[in-house]
Amino acid sequence: MRLEQQIISLLRAVCGHGLHSLHEPRFQGNELRYVEDCIASTFVSSVGRYVDRFECELADFTGAQRAVAVVNGTAALQVALQLAGVESGDEVLMPALTFVGTANAVHYLCATPHFVDSSFDTLGLDSVSLGDWLKHISERVSNGIRNRQTGRRIRAMIPMHTFGHPCDLDGLLALAQDYRLQLIEDAAESLGSYYHDRHTGTFGLLSSLSFNGNKIITTGGGGAILTNDARLADHAKHITTTAKKPHRWNYTHDEVGYNFRMPNINAALGCAQLEQLSGFLASKRRLAARYTQAFAAIPQVRLMREPAGCRSNYWLQTLLLDETVIDHKDEILQATNNEGLITRPAWTLMHQLPAYQRCPRAPLPTAENLARKIINVPSSAGLV
Amino acid sequence: MRLEQQIISLLRAVCGHGLHSLHEPRFQGNELRYVEDCIASTFVSSVGRYVDRFECELADFTGAQRAVAVVNGTAALQVALQLAGVESGDEVLMPALTFVGTANAVHYLCATPHFVDSSFDTLGLDSVSLGDWLKHISERVSNGIRNRQTGRRIRAMIPMHTFGHPCDLDGLLALAQDYRLQLIEDAAESLGSYYHDRHTGTFGLLSSLSFNGNKIITTGGGGAILTNDARLADHAKHITTTAKKPHRWNYTHDEVGYNFRMPNINAALGCAQLEQLSGFLASKRRLAARYTQAFAAIPQVRLMREPAGCRSNYWLQTLLLDETVIDHKDEILQATNNEGLITRPAWTLMHQLPAYQRCPRAPLPTAENLARKIINVPSSAGLV
Repeated sequence: MRLEQQIISLLRAVCGHGLHSLHEPRFQGNELRYVEDCIASTFVSSVGRYVDRFECELADFTGAQRAVAVVNGTAALQVALQLAGVESGDEVLMPALTFVGTANAVHYLCATPHFVDSSFDTLGLDSVSLGDWLKHISERVSNGIRNRQTGRRIRAMIPMHTFGHPCDLDGLLALAQDYRLQLIEDAAESLGSYYHDRHTGTFGLLSSLSFNGNKIITTGGGGAILTNDARLADHAKHITTTAKKPHRWNYTHDEVGYNFRMPNINAALGCAQLEQLSGFLASKRRLAARYTQAFAAIPQVRLMREPAGCRSNYWLQTLLLDETVIDHKDEILQATNNEGLITRPAWTLMHQLPAYQRCPRAPLPTAENLARKIINVPSSAGLV
Repeated sequence: MRLEQQIISLLRAVCGHGLHSLHEPRFQGNELRYVEDCIASTFVSSVGRYVDRFECELADFTGAQRAVAVVNGTAALQVALQLAGVESGDEVLMPALTFVGTANAVHYLCATPHFVDSSFDTLGLDSVSLGDWLKHISERVSNGIRNRQTGRRIRAMIPMHTFGHPCDLDGLLALAQDYRLQLIEDAAESLGSYYHDRHTGTFGLLSSLSFNGNKIITTGGGGAILTNDARLADHAKHITTTAKKPHRWNYTHDEVGYNFRMPNINAALGCAQLEQLSGFLASKRRLAARYTQAFAAIPQVRLMREPAGCRSNYWLQTLLLDETVIDHKDEILQATNNEGLITRPAWTLMHQLPAYQRCPRAPLPTAENLARKIINVPSSAGLV
């Protein structure tokens, strides 16, 4: 049997018949009740108790001291970077293997993404090659480090927890400390993922979450900033709500802010989703086990497993093709999608996008290799 | 009787007893039905038929060729300006008397707001004083006009229809043509307002609407871009949805985009609200007539009426204090708010905000005078 037919058979064995999208949300809790209550209250918009509740419950669940709900994950990351001191003209280290939102958030601040390599073990930033690269290109200056090749300050790094798998935070935190870089986690994909028993998104100075429709829980569109620094959390809340100074009637703004608040009606959906998160996580672990078992039948394909010492949310289930069959990737994508088993490859790597191809970058052998090997397969909670 | 007590009596005569907020939304249509249907479909997020429907119905209602639904009015304005060719380093003319979002949208593009004066007749940009100012400060260059005082190109103007009252579009369009400026309407407040029988927001190259919780219709949070140029509409849709190239599985982005799409669940709310818009507009006209009649009883205060030849949506009902009583403004605000009749003054003028106080500006005698005279009073649809 051809490889793509074998893969279809194995996916069918796990998912069953019919159409299976890559990731669809599941609304079997209090979604409608909370949304109904929200509409009845007339507070559907910028203030309301569901926003407050969602923020408290996110902080509780993740163990972060504070959560600030915003309009999406990209906005969360943009504000996190700004509050971490990223300024116009700075460079920010990030994986080439990420969703474009990571690079866009840096671009919106008039800073420059600087792409570095990923690790086979985690799919996230590789601290070893990053350490070598920084030794090679950086020099210490009074306010941190400078890229000798571009002359620009390197201000921060953004590890991203790819498809929910935690990256090597210990190694990256050590580098951040050594090179005086701010570490901001892009935890858009990793709600429910733990690095050594501690929730991802609680290691960086600030981090971002996403609740887009394809995420493990959804608010329609939405995101959040996590931080353990109360002062930064207050500032995040302030600038994501147009920086309006509190006053009963005056409309004055004490700095440039953003209209990035999460509407109360979206937070109502989020509160209901959060109640079901532990069930979603259990379902996704079952699905990962089932895929692992199924794909043991063929040596050319394996399921990406959570990194050692970590607990992944398995947001997107990820097949890794063996080196010997990477030329079949397009046929596999074509055949599975034609079959109604929705799959997709890794994102186009950031340094290959027209907007970012002239950005600084390290050698990217692993990211480029992974991009040829990754196929995401149907991953919805409730599939098994 | 003291003036503030007289005003409270007149407001009470119109609004009745109890607490009256400045503007609360009204959900008495299909809101719950559509939101329920949206949740049941699982398409709550970035794609879905309520977004398509909301965009079509907005275009139908306004007479614009196309509408693109986005996450809020500020995002709509930012994208409209970008598509109109506003670039980093440009100046953009706008009223000093506006909500801070107008200035922020320009700032996000690394351009500079340039504040000009308003008119007593419309509360919006004064085309006569703007014409004088441009004659005084601008010089023609190959790609448009330059501000002789700053050396920067002046690229566009943003008339804003204050509290729903259409500004002098004929005068401003003539200036825009004469000085080769793009005209982008900030129609955030003027859904349902017409300038000489044509809907506001359809005169500029592009324009922005807002559906924030306090607007005449709400989607929780949301906005839209209007344009009569299909190519610009397609481009607006593309860059507000991360500039992803259409493909069944590949994730490639051909320029820097934004995650600015309106979630389907918010559009579901919007579709239900739009069905009730004509009723809201009728109610607000009744309210304006009642306030006008009531305040005829005292000579020191009058209600702002729609400009000649225009039909205003009367989004926020606006009292104008007579010159002789402007020193009483704070007492009136204090007394009415204490009484549960929620009122507020004009926004702090843009050139008085810390972030924008060093921006270029024309003399602003009328804006400064209006800021001392304006008091917005309870304006919800359904109040009478």
